[in-house]
Amino acid sequence: MPESTLPDVSGLSLGILGGTGDQGKGLARRFAMAGHRVLIGSRSAERAEQAAASLGLDGADVSGAVNATVAAESNIVIVAVPWEGHKELLESLREPLAGKIVVDCVNPLGFDKRGAYALPVEEGSAAEQAAAVLTESRVVAAFHHVSAVLLLDPEVAEVDLDVLVLGDDREATDTVQALANRIAGVRGLYGGRLRNARQVEAFTANLISINRRYKAHAGFRITDV
Amino acid sequence: MPESTLPDVSGLSLGILGGTGDQGKGLARRFAMAGHRVLIGSRSAERAEQAAASLGLDGADVSGAVNATVAAESNIVIVAVPWEGHKELLESLREPLAGKIVVDCVNPLGFDKRGAYALPVEEGSAAEQAAAVLTESRVVAAFHHVSAVLLLDPEVAEVDLDVLVLGDDREATDTVQALANRIAGVRGLYGGRLRNARQVEAFTANLISINRRYKAHAGFRITDV
Repeated sequence: MPESTLPDVSGLSLGILGGTGDQGKGLARRFAMAGHRVLIGSRSAERAEQAAASLGLDGADVSGAVNATVAAESNIVIVAVPWEGHKELLESLREPLAGKIVVDCVNPLGFDKRGAYALPVEEGSAAEQAAAVLTESRVVAAFHHVSAVLLLDPEVAEVDLDVLVLGDDREATDTVQALANRIAGVRGLYGGRLRNARQVEAFTANLISINRRYKAHAGFRITDV
Repeated sequence: MPESTLPDVSGLSLGILGGTGDQGKGLARRFAMAGHRVLIGSRSAERAEQAAASLGLDGADVSGAVNATVAAESNIVIVAVPWEGHKELLESLREPLAGKIVVDCVNPLGFDKRGAYALPVEEGSAAEQAAAVLTESRVVAAFHHVSAVLLLDPEVAEVDLDVLVLGDDREATDTVQALANRIAGVRGLYGGRLRNARQVEAFTANLISINRRYKAHAGFRITDV
């Protein structure tokens, strides 16, 4: 592991758009456990509040609100919505997300009877689509390969995973690496520029294939770093 | 690691098309060290023979020949040629490669001053292009992320890497997994169908970005398998 010169992110509040899905809830749970103020976003305030309550974390600072409120009130905003509707949601949140670090962790995947596969994306990747829409935000891609099952499992104290963080803004990727490091067991590593996000998103299809073959919750660790 | 039911591949001879490049030579070296008969292929028999001799492996069975001879005389053929010319070479070898397992490890990448990036491929990936051309062969994708530097380094006794093996023919992918396991330190894992090869090839661009940032020879290990 290289010497760390990453910023201190311990005081930052995190918003999670689409935080009622398993991936969003899992991230919310781990960040709340790490002491962050977490806002779960949804189209429905009621469903967001229910998701926050369902985590059952006594003493943690997790609450729910509609996506627009979450976007406006959080220091860093994580996009964990389904690929379907991704662009439209971000278009509707351009203003509250302006100036902020926005972390896209969406995987554009299709599924058929042979398993998962990568969907074509006009902009190249979900992250590049986010960057094209959110021209006033600092878009970073990360958290694509986290297993919702492991994040939500109270028996899993540490998550055995490297999170690749991609982006063209060094300060923003450093911040998100530091954020990834807040999840016990996880290591945030720089993974390249945003133009190389597509294969990181699509690789989730391979992890799903691996999970099927080996009955696992696969992730990866980068070697020699 | 799941219980192994992989075939015994210890007696198979291996041909490496484009075996005079660093990746091909590195694979040749490791497979020869593991006791395989290895044939290095090139457009020029002389250059192929020079590459075989340059490995300096006393007692190993490594020789060089033109690509067509290598394709005809090897049990399994590894394609390690540059992306430029990939299709044309395979078109010229359709007949000698018919019926064989052909392992494509080509990464279609471009480079500019910002680093490496994935090139678009009409067929989806180099491996799918190989499958489209070699309709009578059993095409498998593997060995994309091996570091030529580590493979060629006499100081590196074990290569710390999982090799993802992709394909639609279970017997062929099992065979190539067993082959990957012949390299000391390496573990061959099933990584999905051929339609999910693109992102595995393209991920090499991310590993190059990681190498630059962390001064490493990065690969990865799949977790929970």
